[in-house]
Amino acid sequence: MTSESDFIAALGAMATSPAARGLLDDAAVLEVGGSRLVLSHDMIVEEIHFLPDDPPADVAWKLVAVNLSDLAAKGARPLGVLLGYMLGGEEWDRAFVAGLRTVLGAFEIPLLGGDTVSARAGGARCLGLTAIGESTGPVPSRAGARPGDRLWVSGTIGDSGAGLRISTGEIAGPDSLIERYRRPRPRLEAGQALAPLVGAMMDVSDGLLIDSSRIASASGVRLAIDLASIPLSADLIACQSDDRDARIAAATAGDDYELLFAAAPERTAEILAVADRIGLPLSRIGSVESGEGLALMDGPEAVPLPERLGWEHDRPT
Amino acid sequence: MTSESDFIAALGAMATSPAARGLLDDAAVLEVGGSRLVLSHDMIVEEIHFLPDDPPADVAWKLVAVNLSDLAAKGARPLGVLLGYMLGGEEWDRAFVAGLRTVLGAFEIPLLGGDTVSARAGGARCLGLTAIGESTGPVPSRAGARPGDRLWVSGTIGDSGAGLRISTGEIAGPDSLIERYRRPRPRLEAGQALAPLVGAMMDVSDGLLIDSSRIASASGVRLAIDLASIPLSADLIACQSDDRDARIAAATAGDDYELLFAAAPERTAEILAVADRIGLPLSRIGSVESGEGLALMDGPEAVPLPERLGWEHDRPT
Repeated sequence: MTSESDFIAALGAMATSPAARGLLDDAAVLEVGGSRLVLSHDMIVEEIHFLPDDPPADVAWKLVAVNLSDLAAKGARPLGVLLGYMLGGEEWDRAFVAGLRTVLGAFEIPLLGGDTVSARAGGARCLGLTAIGESTGPVPSRAGARPGDRLWVSGTIGDSGAGLRISTGEIAGPDSLIERYRRPRPRLEAGQALAPLVGAMMDVSDGLLIDSSRIASASGVRLAIDLASIPLSADLIACQSDDRDARIAAATAGDDYELLFAAAPERTAEILAVADRIGLPLSRIGSVESGEGLALMDGPEAVPLPERLGWEHDRPT
Repeated sequence: MTSESDFIAALGAMATSPAARGLLDDAAVLEVGGSRLVLSHDMIVEEIHFLPDDPPADVAWKLVAVNLSDLAAKGARPLGVLLGYMLGGEEWDRAFVAGLRTVLGAFEIPLLGGDTVSARAGGARCLGLTAIGESTGPVPSRAGARPGDRLWVSGTIGDSGAGLRISTGEIAGPDSLIERYRRPRPRLEAGQALAPLVGAMMDVSDGLLIDSSRIASASGVRLAIDLASIPLSADLIACQSDDRDARIAAATAGDDYELLFAAAPERTAEILAVADRIGLPLSRIGSVESGEGLALMDGPEAVPLPERLGWEHDRPT
């Protein structure tokens, strides 16, 4: 037990309101009057979540997008955001605010309020964002996957992880993958359409495998995942190959901001209809079984779980 | 024009939703379904808003209290908070979480969610809190003061500023004043009772004079403030005297987290009844006139405005 997990456990013990969902979900779900609010807050820190020479407009994009992705995973429609901003130098601030205007415009989200604070000399920049959304239907948790359900993921997996490695010069590859890392697209429309069809849903932020293990744990089930079914983009395959190692790398890379969900087999036609209507691939990558944890397959062959499933508390785990 | 005010102006130009109130109010006011949400987000930074050797439990208290004070100023009932927490070392974190439990328990506020992030080595701690409240009546802004209204303030002014100076050893004085600095009491009950009675209301965070000038500016009026009527505590008078300089110091010190409001004269009896019922003094400190800015009096004598009215963007101004 690390001090971090002690800390989070202490917070969880305090969060007894049902709206908090035990701090184990992507967002809080608060009933107010006749409305169901979905609330997410993420904080990002320089040199932990972004680099000092990352373009400030991309930092703004990501700060907004990761919070909207939490709302998307709960099927919520965003109503607005509050920004906690630490001033970081005139040029950086100007580029950030231009980027904020871009990302809020792209998703048509109003800026509602927040706070602007001075930085300590030499301190790391720290930025926070609260996203407020509304759901008009059921808000899927991570705990509703049932044996017999199918496991699905939206879009393609691993692009962002490769994009990070391209941006640091570790590997060569196209700018399109860097764009996936720097400017993730929260799956808002898909999340709203899927929420009534699924048993459990979350967004893939820390890695497909570790996030799957969280659904397995919250739902008290085992998830069997077929590596061969994990959707990879043509760009990723072109720069990283399509072998088992590349698929494991993709499934543990994180920062995908795709939707991971479990749904009963009889929902399959409706799910595929959502994919068609939105123009976003929704791929079946496994199934929900009795038991616990993850079972990894590569087609018919059982594959041992990699030692590292993804990221936890900002660290590889 | 500093880069800070440029930045805030650029955010304000982006915040076109009426819910944002032009980023000029203490909180955003968002209508959702039949409910009126009041949303506040504040961020605090080590060495700017708190000191490395401040007791972590007091930092937790203040982080929660300053946000609840924003809700109080809008007459809202708090529904819960989201915490953005940067890990800061095992012992500090443990003391913080115990303090968080204390302050949330004291005001019976649920912890709904948030985010826990790692710190950069050597970086300043940075903490954020979002408070979500609901109002069932009118939500006073800063813009509704009208000539002929009376200007009021709750509690006593200047205790917290003296408490800060006592805690740094600059002056001698009782622990009760340090307590007022470290553990401000948001005026939630008073705010909810006063909201239907007032034309304009805000909390005093940056200094009574500068915050009054903000009501004057937002409302397009002049506020005449009588220094002799500003309520000072017996503890403050005992350690700082009761002369004009001490009153000006109190009125520009900030961190009071009292309510400052303007109300029509015919509301006076109802306001005094609220004071009686809650057991919190509500003092008339001046009046609203045609014109702009502030006029300072000391009883019958006009007094020039001090050069510094309070704090702005974390800096004295």
